[in-house]
Amino acid sequence: MHRIMKIGIDILGVDAPEKIINFINTYKDDEVELYVYGMEKELAKVTKTENIVKNLCTEQVFMEDDSARVHRKKKDASMIRLLEDLKNDVIDVAISGGSTGAFMASSIFMLGRIEGVSKPGLASLLPTRSDHKFLLTDLGANVEARPEDILNYAKLGQLYMKYIYNIETPSVALLNVGVEETKGNKVYKEAHQLLKSNISNFNGNIESRNILEHTNDIVVSEGFAGNVMLKTIEGVAGSLGKMIKGIFMQNLKTKIGGLLVKSGISAFRKKFDYSEYGGAFLLGIKKPSIKVHGSSDENALYYAVQQAKQIHKTKLYDIMIETMEKGEQK
Amino acid sequence: MHRIMKIGIDILGVDAPEKIINFINTYKDDEVELYVYGMEKELAKVTKTENIVKNLCTEQVFMEDDSARVHRKKKDASMIRLLEDLKNDVIDVAISGGSTGAFMASSIFMLGRIEGVSKPGLASLLPTRSDHKFLLTDLGANVEARPEDILNYAKLGQLYMKYIYNIETPSVALLNVGVEETKGNKVYKEAHQLLKSNISNFNGNIESRNILEHTNDIVVSEGFAGNVMLKTIEGVAGSLGKMIKGIFMQNLKTKIGGLLVKSGISAFRKKFDYSEYGGAFLLGIKKPSIKVHGSSDENALYYAVQQAKQIHKTKLYDIMIETMEKGEQK
Repeated sequence: MHRIMKIGIDILGVDAPEKIINFINTYKDDEVELYVYGMEKELAKVTKTENIVKNLCTEQVFMEDDSARVHRKKKDASMIRLLEDLKNDVIDVAISGGSTGAFMASSIFMLGRIEGVSKPGLASLLPTRSDHKFLLTDLGANVEARPEDILNYAKLGQLYMKYIYNIETPSVALLNVGVEETKGNKVYKEAHQLLKSNISNFNGNIESRNILEHTNDIVVSEGFAGNVMLKTIEGVAGSLGKMIKGIFMQNLKTKIGGLLVKSGISAFRKKFDYSEYGGAFLLGIKKPSIKVHGSSDENALYYAVQQAKQIHKTKLYDIMIETMEKGEQK
Repeated sequence: MHRIMKIGIDILGVDAPEKIINFINTYKDDEVELYVYGMEKELAKVTKTENIVKNLCTEQVFMEDDSARVHRKKKDASMIRLLEDLKNDVIDVAISGGSTGAFMASSIFMLGRIEGVSKPGLASLLPTRSDHKFLLTDLGANVEARPEDILNYAKLGQLYMKYIYNIETPSVALLNVGVEETKGNKVYKEAHQLLKSNISNFNGNIESRNILEHTNDIVVSEGFAGNVMLKTIEGVAGSLGKMIKGIFMQNLKTKIGGLLVKSGISAFRKKFDYSEYGGAFLLGIKKPSIKVHGSSDENALYYAVQQAKQIHKTKLYDIMIETMEKGEQK
């Protein structure tokens, strides 16, 4: 008999815990048992009775908590209990929408790094203008990256895209300030050479002006520039969206104009609704913990659970550990 | 009698030299004498006869030229002759749309650095969602910046915004991956402390997700992240623009929708037409050279010449040299 998957969900630390609870109460999936972590107030609202395990916690992680210490200071917080259960194989995959800093630091400390990876990188799938999606890493876990860290992101990213999206040899590009291989600072110049020697299907540098137009499967960078790029994409898309909305709201004429293009605008919004691409995750740790956005709703949780199922079914993390420990090269 | 200003314009190195020539032939301004630099073919098309000095050159700088050496290898190229005349006070301000790398390196080598500034930064004015504009620097001149370089960008940027835009004490923010002062890598953490101690009206860190929403007069960063952010803004705005256009072009209904919001869309485009904000320039060199976009048209040249006039009238570069040499602090 197929063993049921155990997926852990932290109810706390998000903008709207009621949306997480609503997802839990309405999610139907015979393959999955949900382990939910929250305090008395939230757990009381979890009315689902089948395939559910409630874990009563007495505290919660806040944004202000010291990310590096919270796993020792708040052992009974929902996020920490969740990760502790993942560590001890009580659950198979963990999902949380709490503080990114606390989630990253606690995941690294509690779940451990894969041998050969000293600095895990945060990764997430992003949209482009076409239907193509790509994995961007590091989104900001490691703002003092060395060239070998960037090489590890590429290796681990290729495993992710190969096993989760069935791409045989995923293509990789390096974020840089120009396409020539001599461009960038010392870290990027060295990273370019390492990628060139060690990664099959390395397509060289990519400039951020093409980030929504390119066709690479993976874009790697150190965490500072990766974080700046991610937040610029989000910020510019958000600001331009508000401006476009303003244009349509000016008067009756423009409002009618808005109605006539409504379906196109909805499709456009949907593309930039990152929640449908699943959550972010650390490349380089031993067990799968998924970080969803603090503003996550039922939809975002649904996609994160599908991502968790894929990760578990493909045994991706075991493959990552094996591959890196063998120190395999192309 | 008021001495006439001498503004030099490089006709070559742009996508469409005929647009530059058209600007030159039609520009009327009693305060300005235009010094134009091009080869025989282009100069033959310059039909303006008053307040014009034609400088016949025998070669031109190309994108492929080695930026660091071109000022010695191609002494008779239009861009190099332009900068040589600026160096020798034949002209007051230089404008070119040629290779950015060559223009930056040649400007630094030929015009010299201001005492105390070892690495000049490239700066440009950028739009936000409101009518507010801000100066962003470094856009990529120096991808190995030290904290003291970033401090210099802030000091020089404040002088630019004070004298060109009449802002008494321009506000400064530091691009970073989070707002807390402990965020970022070593360079950014140290830069934050230097800015805090030395810059009046320093507003702390800014995240790139707010870059089109904030109200600071100046945003400083090292050149790698600054370049990534600039190109992400350009790229995302361009890609989203194409997507919006696609939405309107789908069918007759959406095309009518497009007509109804036409004026709003034009205003939106105009805001992101960077050419109206003048060209980019190096903060930390001794004489004013302005880099306009390779795709510049008559309009872009018009605004660059107005910027050049302001720079000359305010004696901004003399003030920069004096201020930095005195090592003035707040």
